[in-house]
Amino acid sequence: MSTLVKPSILPGFMELTPTDQILFNKMMDTIRKNYEKFGFLPIDTPVIEKSEVLLAKGGGETEKQVYRFQKGSTDMSLRFDLTVPLARYVSQYYSQLNFPFRRYQIGKVYRGERNQKGRFREFYQCDIDIIGNGSLSIINDAEIPALIYSTFKELGFDAFTIQINNRKILKGFFDSLEIDDSTQILRTIDKLEKIGQAGVEKELAELGLNPEKIEKINAFISVKGNNAGIISELRKLNVSNEVFIEGVEELDTVIKYIRLFGVPEENCKINLSIVRGLDYYTGTVYETFLDDYPSLGSICSGGRYDNLAEYYTKQKLPGVGMSIGLTRLFYQLREANLIQADETSLTKVLIIPMNEYTEESVEVANKLREAGVFSQVYLESGKVGKKFGYADKLSIPYVIVVGEEEVKTGLYTIRDMTTGEQRSLDLEEAIKCLK
Amino acid sequence: MSTLVKPSILPGFMELTPTDQILFNKMMDTIRKNYEKFGFLPIDTPVIEKSEVLLAKGGGETEKQVYRFQKGSTDMSLRFDLTVPLARYVSQYYSQLNFPFRRYQIGKVYRGERNQKGRFREFYQCDIDIIGNGSLSIINDAEIPALIYSTFKELGFDAFTIQINNRKILKGFFDSLEIDDSTQILRTIDKLEKIGQAGVEKELAELGLNPEKIEKINAFISVKGNNAGIISELRKLNVSNEVFIEGVEELDTVIKYIRLFGVPEENCKINLSIVRGLDYYTGTVYETFLDDYPSLGSICSGGRYDNLAEYYTKQKLPGVGMSIGLTRLFYQLREANLIQADETSLTKVLIIPMNEYTEESVEVANKLREAGVFSQVYLESGKVGKKFGYADKLSIPYVIVVGEEEVKTGLYTIRDMTTGEQRSLDLEEAIKCLK
Repeated sequence: MSTLVKPSILPGFMELTPTDQILFNKMMDTIRKNYEKFGFLPIDTPVIEKSEVLLAKGGGETEKQVYRFQKGSTDMSLRFDLTVPLARYVSQYYSQLNFPFRRYQIGKVYRGERNQKGRFREFYQCDIDIIGNGSLSIINDAEIPALIYSTFKELGFDAFTIQINNRKILKGFFDSLEIDDSTQILRTIDKLEKIGQAGVEKELAELGLNPEKIEKINAFISVKGNNAGIISELRKLNVSNEVFIEGVEELDTVIKYIRLFGVPEENCKINLSIVRGLDYYTGTVYETFLDDYPSLGSICSGGRYDNLAEYYTKQKLPGVGMSIGLTRLFYQLREANLIQADETSLTKVLIIPMNEYTEESVEVANKLREAGVFSQVYLESGKVGKKFGYADKLSIPYVIVVGEEEVKTGLYTIRDMTTGEQRSLDLEEAIKCLK
Repeated sequence: MSTLVKPSILPGFMELTPTDQILFNKMMDTIRKNYEKFGFLPIDTPVIEKSEVLLAKGGGETEKQVYRFQKGSTDMSLRFDLTVPLARYVSQYYSQLNFPFRRYQIGKVYRGERNQKGRFREFYQCDIDIIGNGSLSIINDAEIPALIYSTFKELGFDAFTIQINNRKILKGFFDSLEIDDSTQILRTIDKLEKIGQAGVEKELAELGLNPEKIEKINAFISVKGNNAGIISELRKLNVSNEVFIEGVEELDTVIKYIRLFGVPEENCKINLSIVRGLDYYTGTVYETFLDDYPSLGSICSGGRYDNLAEYYTKQKLPGVGMSIGLTRLFYQLREANLIQADETSLTKVLIIPMNEYTEESVEVANKLREAGVFSQVYLESGKVGKKFGYADKLSIPYVIVVGEEEVKTGLYTIRDMTTGEQRSLDLEEAIKCLK
C-alpha cells in the first residue's frame, strides 16, 4: 500500500474508547432494565424509512436536518426521532397490538445539525410511550415520572427534579384572557428563568398586552409553593374556564399519583413556566434537571399528547411518554467530570501463563468462565512484567499466575491489581473470591 | 387530516412484533454476555462514515450495494459491515489501545442488496475480533471456536458443528502442484457439497488440469476421518511445501487447543473443503452449521487474517475473528419453526384494580418493582374480563387482583394465567412466589 487513507470519522459523531463504552453501555442497560420493570415492551424499527412516511408531517427544521437520499428510484430518509416511527408502527400493526400499548425503544437517530460542541448528528434516544386506543387514563401521566425517578436513581443520581406542568392550565388561562394566539406569550414566559420577571413583563408589553392582562399573567406565573400549595393557589385564581379547571384537576390527580408511585416531593415539583414543544403536547409535560447542574438543561423530557398518529390513521391514539437523550447526557456528564470511566473493566481476571503453562491456563479459564467469571488468558509471548502491565492498563482487577508451582500444588496466586495484595487459593476458593 | 399516508416500511427491512422482539433481544443479550465472558471489549462506531474512509478498499459488489449520499459537501456512506469500521478504529486509536485488542461490536449494517426473501438490507452483525500488534499467537484461533461453542450452547442449540480449516494447507498444496492461481480451483472445490466429487473432477478437467494433478487434488479432498485422523492423513500426503506444512502444524495446534478449551470433537470438525472469502482470510477459517438444518448455510463464520488495516496504517495488525448475522439467523430459525415467540413476556405480573382500588394497586406495584418483579398496573377502566384478556394476549404469566377483600385482609389472589390456578398470599409470599 503506498497511499494510506487517514482514519477518521465525520464531525458530530460520538465514538468512545472501550472503557468509556463500557460505562455508556451500563447506563443504557440500567435505562432498559427500568423500562422493562415497568412493563414496557421493546420494539426496534428500521433506521431507514420511506421519506414519504417519515416526513408525512413535513415542514420546519426537521425537514432541513434530515438525511434524505435516493437509492435506485426509492426516496429514503434516516429517522430523526423515535416518535414518528412509533406513530407509523402503531398505525401499521394497529390490529395486532394490545392497548394500552406500552413500548420502549432505544436506538440511534440522525439529524444533520449545524456542527457545534455538544450537538450530535447521530445520537441514542431512549423512549417510552403508553398509547391508548381512543382514551388513556390520566394515571399513566403519573407513572412516567415514577419511571424517570426509578431510572435516574439507579443511574446514581440523587439531586434531580422532575418539573411538571399541564398545558391545559396555560391554554385555559389564556383563553380566559381572550388571547387567541398565545404562542409568543408562551415563548416569553418560557424565558422566565433566563430573563426574570421584569424581563417577561417588558416583553409582554411589547407584545401589546394591556396592564390588566399583564398583571393577571404575573399573578399566574408568580404562583409558588409546594405542589399542594400551587394547586390551591391556582384554584384561588378563580379562572372560570373549563380547560383551565380540567388542567388543574388533571395536575392534582397526577401529583397525587406520583406520590403514590413513591416519588418524593423533592424530586418532582410543579413548575407552571415549563411548556415544551408547543404544537405536540396537549396536557401534562415534564422536564428533568440535575439540581446542581441546571446548565445541562433538561436531561429527560416528555408529556401527554392527544393524537399520536394523525398522519397515518383515523384511529384516535392518545399517549404519554418521555425520552432520554443518552448520547448528549453521557457527553455532558463526562464534560462536567461527573463520570469517571478510566477504572472500568468487564473482565474480572487476567490469567497469565508462566513459560509453557498455557494449556493449564486455558483449563483455569474454562473453569472460571463456567462459574460465570469473565476471564481472559494472556496468550502472547513476552515478559511477565508486560503481561501484568496489560492487566493494569485495561483495569482488570485480578491476575492469576499459572506456573509450575501452581500446577503442582493446585494453589493459584491471585493478585489484587488495586492493592497489590496476593493470596494463594485453590480454584474453588478463587472462584468464590472472584464472584 | 383528510389525506393519510399509508404506514409501511421499505422492503428488505426486518421489523418485529414486541413478542418477537423480546426473543430477538434475548438472543442478542446471550451473544453479548458470552462475548464479554471471554474478555472482549465493546465498541460502537458510527453507522455513517466518510465514503473515502469506508470505501478505501473499493471495487467489487460492496461499492454497488453501499448506501452512499451527499449532505452539503460531505460524501458519506452507511457501513456495510463491522470489519472496515474496526480497521479504521484500530488505526485511528492505535496508540491508545492495548494489544492484543479484543473487541466485540453488535450493530446494524446496511447493504442495498437485490430484494429477495431472507435477504436483508438492514441487519445486525455480532462481531468479535482479536487484533495483535505485529503478531498474534495461534492459540487465539482456538479460542474463537470455544466462544462460538459457548454462545450457541447458551442460545439453546446442541446439534451444531463448527467446521474448521486452514487456508495455508490449501495454498501450500496448490503451490506444490505449481498452480499459481488457485482461485478457480478453490471455487470448484468449494462446491464439493453441492455437486459431489465427480462434478468437481469434471470442472477441474475443464479448468485444464492434467489427470495427475486432478488425482492429487482428489486424494487431498478425499482426506477423511476424525480430526486427529485428518491431520495424520495430511502429513502422509508428503507434500514438501513449507506453507502446507505450516498450515498443518497450525491446524494441529488449533485443534488441540480447541479441545483444551472444552469444545467436544462432535461440535468442531476439520473440513478441508471450506475456504471462505478468498482475498481476506490467510490462515484458520471457520463456518458453523446446524446439523439438522444444513440448508440454512453457515450461521457463524470467520477466520484469521494477516493484516487488518492496510488501507489506513503501516502497522501490521494480524487478527482473528468471527461474526454472527443475527437478523438472518433469527429469520431463518423462525421460518424453520425453530423458535416460538408467541409465549413470551418480560412482564411477570399484571395488577388489576377492582372498582376504586387503583391507589392500593399502585402501592402493590411499587413493592413488586422494588423487589425486582417486572409489573404493570392495568390503569384503564373497563370490565374485569377484558383486563384478564389483556394479560392473556400479552402472555403475562400472573395476575394479581386488588379489591376490597384483598385490601382488608392483606391477602392477594394470584392467578397463574397458564394453569388458571389461584392462590391467596400476602405480599411477601407473593413476591417470593413470583421471583
